[in-house]
Amino acid sequence: MPPRNIQLNEQGRLRHFLTVEGFKRQMLIDILDTAESLSGVVDRSVKKVPLLRGKTIVNLFFEPSTRTRTTFELAAKRLSADVLNINIAVSATTKGESLLDTLYNLQAMHCDMFVVRHAESGAAHFIANHVAPHISVVNAGDGRHAHPTQAMLDMFTIRRVKGDFYPLTVAIVGDIANSRVARSQIHALTTLGVNEVRVIGPKTLIPPAVESLGVHVYHDMSEGLRDTDVVIMLRLQNERMQGELLPSEHEYYQLYGLTEARLAVAKPDAIVMHPGPINRGVEIESSVADGPRSVILEQVTHGIAVRMAVMSMCLGQGMEGGQG
Amino acid sequence: MPPRNIQLNEQGRLRHFLTVEGFKRQMLIDILDTAESLSGVVDRSVKKVPLLRGKTIVNLFFEPSTRTRTTFELAAKRLSADVLNINIAVSATTKGESLLDTLYNLQAMHCDMFVVRHAESGAAHFIANHVAPHISVVNAGDGRHAHPTQAMLDMFTIRRVKGDFYPLTVAIVGDIANSRVARSQIHALTTLGVNEVRVIGPKTLIPPAVESLGVHVYHDMSEGLRDTDVVIMLRLQNERMQGELLPSEHEYYQLYGLTEARLAVAKPDAIVMHPGPINRGVEIESSVADGPRSVILEQVTHGIAVRMAVMSMCLGQGMEGGQG
Amino acid sequence: MPPRNIQLNEQGRLRHFLTVEGFKRQMLIDILDTAESLSGVVDRSVKKVPLLRGKTIVNLFFEPSTRTRTTFELAAKRLSADVLNINIAVSATTKGESLLDTLYNLQAMHCDMFVVRHAESGAAHFIANHVAPHISVVNAGDGRHAHPTQAMLDMFTIRRVKGDFYPLTVAIVGDIANSRVARSQIHALTTLGVNEVRVIGPKTLIPPAVESLGVHVYHDMSEGLRDTDVVIMLRLQNERMQGELLPSEHEYYQLYGLTEARLAVAKPDAIVMHPGPINRGVEIESSVADGPRSVILEQVTHGIAVRMAVMSMCLGQGMEGGQG
Repeated sequence: MPPRNIQLNEQGRLRHFLTVEGFKRQMLIDILDTAESLSGVVDRSVKKVPLLRGKTIVNLFFEPSTRTRTTFELAAKRLSADVLNINIAVSATTKGESLLDTLYNLQAMHCDMFVVRHAESGAAHFIANHVAPHISVVNAGDGRHAHPTQAMLDMFTIRRVKGDFYPLTVAIVGDIANSRVARSQIHALTTLGVNEVRVIGPKTLIPPAVESLGVHVYHDMSEGLRDTDVVIMLRLQNERMQGELLPSEHEYYQLYGLTEARLAVAKPDAIVMHPGPINRGVEIESSVADGPRSVILEQVTHGIAVRMAVMSMCLGQGMEGGQG
Repeated sequence: MPPRNIQLNEQGRLRHFLTVEGFKRQMLIDILDTAESLSGVVDRSVKKVPLLRGKTIVNLFFEPSTRTRTTFELAAKRLSADVLNINIAVSATTKGESLLDTLYNLQAMHCDMFVVRHAESGAAHFIANHVAPHISVVNAGDGRHAHPTQAMLDMFTIRRVKGDFYPLTVAIVGDIANSRVARSQIHALTTLGVNEVRVIGPKTLIPPAVESLGVHVYHDMSEGLRDTDVVIMLRLQNERMQGELLPSEHEYYQLYGLTEARLAVAKPDAIVMHPGPINRGVEIESSVADGPRSVILEQVTHGIAVRMAVMSMCLGQGMEGGQG
Repeated sequence: MPPRNIQLNEQGRLRHFLTVEGFKRQMLIDILDTAESLSGVVDRSVKKVPLLRGKTIVNLFFEPSTRTRTTFELAAKRLSADVLNINIAVSATTKGESLLDTLYNLQAMHCDMFVVRHAESGAAHFIANHVAPHISVVNAGDGRHAHPTQAMLDMFTIRRVKGDFYPLTVAIVGDIANSRVARSQIHALTTLGVNEVRVIGPKTLIPPAVESLGVHVYHDMSEGLRDTDVVIMLRLQNERMQGELLPSEHEYYQLYGLTEARLAVAKPDAIVMHPGPINRGVEIESSVADGPRSVILEQVTHGIAVRMAVMSMCLGQGMEGGQG
């Protein structure tokens, strides 16, 4: 018997959301369907539902990110949960012990969920392995490892526009090696069964054995973009690339920046995505980012619904009484 | 046909509140009347109303101000809105483009209102010119330009005590040149039709063509205060006056500080106002600030009701369903 | 006639909670009983009660403490109050006047309660002496003086395990001289009538006339712990001990660290407490902190219920209409 996925409870329902890796296709579809049903909340005159009323969700950010914190806070408030924002300087928790003491204190206060952002890969798993049974953990980005809610909002956006995953060719462009977003996207796309996933970037930014994840590697932008249905641009994050053999910003744009001209080789109805915030003129031309094929702002909108879905599904165990 | 006021929607109702300038008298009266009806909320046992339940209000502060942020947050919560506080260091948005990207992201999350504080004049207008049709913008102070909710709470306070605007003589004392508060007050007072508006201060702190706004200029404090009904003191903000030809703090107090003695020339029932926080012994004597003619703390109280009024009026479009 | 306790209103009910000192035993029992009834809220599917709906509670922290702020914020939200978090750098309020101006502004906004944390002893009393009649003040720790909600959650924890206070021998170990927690605990324990309170520590960390509070002093750890029912460890706070004659951390642990071996002289069913955050290996051995006698995390849990009790009792005056 294989070890149980830590992300599922004993009934096989979602408990934590740490990584896309290891989930069956149906679970990802369930998340997308739940997000679909919750996406209508914003069209109501009162833009919230009482699904998580009385629940306490803690945004536990060991790495500052106003942007990501905001999306989780908003999703939680639209579900009527109470939200605590806690920013912890890493220096205060250099010892694993004191991180655990912080967690044990918060769970003793009957918090229900930790949304964790951390600069170290594996932090969310570490926390999930130590919390009490009543606590759920959602990974809001850990090091270079995973950013699963970002990947799921991307899948939601693709499904909204393209309908079906099977026939699609999807290209992810940029710093694959350092991107938690890319890693989560690759797992989601292959699990959902797209026809082909391509990664495009300079040799120095493509991880060595990435083909083992089921993707095709391209170092030439035009080749890689040819006949794609979806182009996902990554943010060039200078702060993560110290010591890498990276061409200058200008040179990078010449080779891998997404311009109108370059996009011409993709399918006529190809869409352009980006996790944001975009670096205009660095990895993407402004006219593309703001153009008719761009669904970048739709991604932001869907991000709220997807996070609402993940939060309510994780806390759904025994919530029936609360909803009645 | 004159260009439509950007602050009004197509039905002529309030959409943004960026500046007092350009509003008809009746709109200001409507705001005061709405504030009057909302001011009773704090006398109830449950001190809030569900007018903005499910709405998301973002305090978007590019210039830190705990005090102003607090009043807007409180007003929003008393209206049952959800509030997001976002502080953005100006350095992160030096390029206009990235400011807009931040805005577009927030509006993609279905936020309903931006309360904007910014060190640059015109920032709130710039933002209002770029947001989607479902978004309202309230100016919480932009550079030296405007602070319209402050001006309206001052009008509310004056009306509460004096009843009628027409017979009043109002003096504004201090650094008129650098004060967004003064500018908004002058527009509000003249629009509401007070008998006379005076500005009092040293030549270096009075803007060149201020008479064109319909005010009388005085450089002598006693002359300017004579027979006034309302005395509005401004805060001496050293940080805004670098490079100005300003007398020393002590000398300033000798010439323009509001003392009991100096106030004697005003009408016996004159009231004293100040937008706060007060500099005791710099622009105002403590015994005046705390004395029977001071309505400084009443201004603070009324500030909540006026902000509730502006917020609920701006978001009132199509809110009927939410209230039913 | 003795002067009325400032903490009580004219009907003798709780208005402020500044210090345990001066309360009758019955008041402390009332707080514990109210906390007991509120402790069940977290077992409900919707973990909150509408007791303080529409009330505004301000966390007014002049000394940063994420941990303590979190517990008060959580307690307030579980009571359905609105919460404002305001951090004030002491530098901004060095003059007593401007502190008062800040307070007067917040009370003019119809806030209902100030939860005050301050590095100076007496700050909460000072504030309580100056607020308007409709405002309650709760001391969340002031200098070396008092931390009464911490003491009450300790009492709650002791009563939960031991049932009755009268037969108990309680030892408090560590830096008694600098500890606001110890001071509040001593008052609570003696008021509740425990059999014996002991304080244990080096001569330099025991205040000169501490016996006058009704405690016995021990400088030898084994002697002091003998036959105790409850052992309360204090956190060694280096930042408060500058200039004190303190042995090194290692030497301190040798003499006053709570180890399994040392705990053996206490009663077999003795419990171990600590206000947190714990310094593992400095004042307490990890195996003791995490062991079967430790009730440290139970203290954290009970802290929410006790703070809910204090808040709702303080604001209980005239709240009947709000609950109906």
